[in-house]
Amino acid sequence: MSVPDVRAERVAQAVGERDLDLLVVTDGPSLRWLTGFSGSNGAAIVGAGGTRIFVTDFRYVTQSEQQIGPIWDRRLADRELLGPGIAGELPPGAGTVAYDGATVSVDAAQALQEALGDGVAAVPAGGIVQTLREIKDANEVDRIRAAAGLADAALETVLARGVTGRTEADVALDLEIELRRAGAQAISFAPIVAHGAHGALPHAQPREVAIQAGTLLTIDWGARLDGYCSDCTRTFAVGDPGDDARAVYDLVLRAQVAALAAVRPGPTGREVDAVARDIIDEAGHADHFGHGLGHGVGLEIHEGPRLSRTGETSLAAGMIVTVEPGVYVPGRHGVRIEDLVVVTDDGCEVLNTLPKELRTIA
Amino acid sequence: MSVPDVRAERVAQAVGERDLDLLVVTDGPSLRWLTGFSGSNGAAIVGAGGTRIFVTDFRYVTQSEQQIGPIWDRRLADRELLGPGIAGELPPGAGTVAYDGATVSVDAAQALQEALGDGVAAVPAGGIVQTLREIKDANEVDRIRAAAGLADAALETVLARGVTGRTEADVALDLEIELRRAGAQAISFAPIVAHGAHGALPHAQPREVAIQAGTLLTIDWGARLDGYCSDCTRTFAVGDPGDDARAVYDLVLRAQVAALAAVRPGPTGREVDAVARDIIDEAGHADHFGHGLGHGVGLEIHEGPRLSRTGETSLAAGMIVTVEPGVYVPGRHGVRIEDLVVVTDDGCEVLNTLPKELRTIA
Repeated sequence: MSVPDVRAERVAQAVGERDLDLLVVTDGPSLRWLTGFSGSNGAAIVGAGGTRIFVTDFRYVTQSEQQIGPIWDRRLADRELLGPGIAGELPPGAGTVAYDGATVSVDAAQALQEALGDGVAAVPAGGIVQTLREIKDANEVDRIRAAAGLADAALETVLARGVTGRTEADVALDLEIELRRAGAQAISFAPIVAHGAHGALPHAQPREVAIQAGTLLTIDWGARLDGYCSDCTRTFAVGDPGDDARAVYDLVLRAQVAALAAVRPGPTGREVDAVARDIIDEAGHADHFGHGLGHGVGLEIHEGPRLSRTGETSLAAGMIVTVEPGVYVPGRHGVRIEDLVVVTDDGCEVLNTLPKELRTIA
Repeated sequence: MSVPDVRAERVAQAVGERDLDLLVVTDGPSLRWLTGFSGSNGAAIVGAGGTRIFVTDFRYVTQSEQQIGPIWDRRLADRELLGPGIAGELPPGAGTVAYDGATVSVDAAQALQEALGDGVAAVPAGGIVQTLREIKDANEVDRIRAAAGLADAALETVLARGVTGRTEADVALDLEIELRRAGAQAISFAPIVAHGAHGALPHAQPREVAIQAGTLLTIDWGARLDGYCSDCTRTFAVGDPGDDARAVYDLVLRAQVAALAAVRPGPTGREVDAVARDIIDEAGHADHFGHGLGHGVGLEIHEGPRLSRTGETSLAAGMIVTVEPGVYVPGRHGVRIEDLVVVTDDGCEVLNTLPKELRTIA
């Protein structure tokens, strides 16, 4: 479970570049990325000058010994970590202690400042670790590829049992169980299984409603493996969904393939989003694609960068993002096709394996 | 899914008592308790003067229509809810807009203040909804009782298959699947299954290690049903664990029964914690009970009130709390016995059903 020491070095460098003395990292995914620690309560303190302190409570003594590398000076705190517990572990001389304003609550920040006293300023400095996490190393790519492969296999197992006449909720539960049986430590998120008009809700919840032939069926699912998430969506034809549905499917597939072809180092998330959005807009469905094209995936199911109308981050090699345009026609049907890709030096590699031609299932 | 209107009235009353104009509620469990909305992105705005506004984004239009009662004026925001989206929906004339400092991030609070402008102050006012949530109504008690009953039945199904020679991880997965099959919408938390010396870790993670006869086996598990959690722990004898282990079990059971007898309206969480702690301390295991006696359970698996050395809240009828002393002897074994109880007018009622005498399983 140990992670490369270079991660702490990169964080320390970013801390120095921002003229900060110390950064306190407490949110679970960032802490795991930085230190390897997967428990629910811990904090890492990284200083530009070489400080590497890890604090947890008594429950995680053994676990932190096993997970955290020797660069970390391990300490125990028996009170709230952000606040008195951390303040007592800081090296002397720090003038500013930064924390992530996006994940630290107002109350926790206030407790930290009170514990630090007047001489040291607690300042929000969001995104240092989150930004570094956007670029995955080879080991992380392998884990996410493995999660995606496991998820694909689990779906095939479920589809082989047939879906017509089963409820959306039953298929979703079956899929969840297969994911866990196949070795996923958890599901990335509760699977979406939605057919017919219900598929026109991008975040549909599976219902106790039987899946009817002659409809489109959208399944959005993912596995978590070693902390890392996969995320994929496929839309299937259950029997013959009709020409209108097929036309929407073809449109979304065309937009998805075009967007995939645009994924490479350089363009912003907004620019890649526009590739798919323009195709859908031109086909008269501008109002039916109400979400962004995609998002980063890693230790969190939604992380940076965003591929959306407001995504200003430029893509870079090593980023892992979803490419998932959708068209949702209220009261009729919905189509979403989602691949999980890693940005390579000159394009991208799709990490999941299921084909994308409209597949008819029973 | 709709919730009693009196909840919004109670929140409004608390807002007025604190001399606030408006309270913005955004954290998922509190929002669900207050409005019935179970989506991932929404905000309720409650004013002492009668304001009842609910804001969500386009993804949850249909869901919010179904879940939220007519007292709420529903609005759509297409940007970050805490910040510009909410600021645009506020009734004119408010001087202070309060938010929950325990769940709102520093960045979100700053965005809200910037959107409000100079004339309106965004202020942290933590715990208004959380405190009201501590007292459950009859419907909530029924849901948690149902979740506890479902969880008990799922465990019996797993135990009937035998555990000796199976790995901790396999038993945990089996239990998780049975919970879902029995109708749990999710697990309350990843089950703990730990035997022998591993049981001496209060938050042990299930391992790929076969369960041996002649040990104690601790299982801590729960089901989520209609959003509400259950939480229970039992420690079993796998074959004959020996006299030392039995003595520890008897001690923990004695402490647990004594603490249960102390649960009623009036005493603080600290006082009830002390009942169990004193018994364990007097038996020479003061260093082996490193966590608090219990915690509130509801829409979150851990909520108020705390039963611990720092629990200053007085118990009141309708609170649902765990009573879970433990003794963890490093390198040897661990015992934890946990019931989930609702405080009644003159004592408490245990919501789970499994007996507590040391049970030998195969």
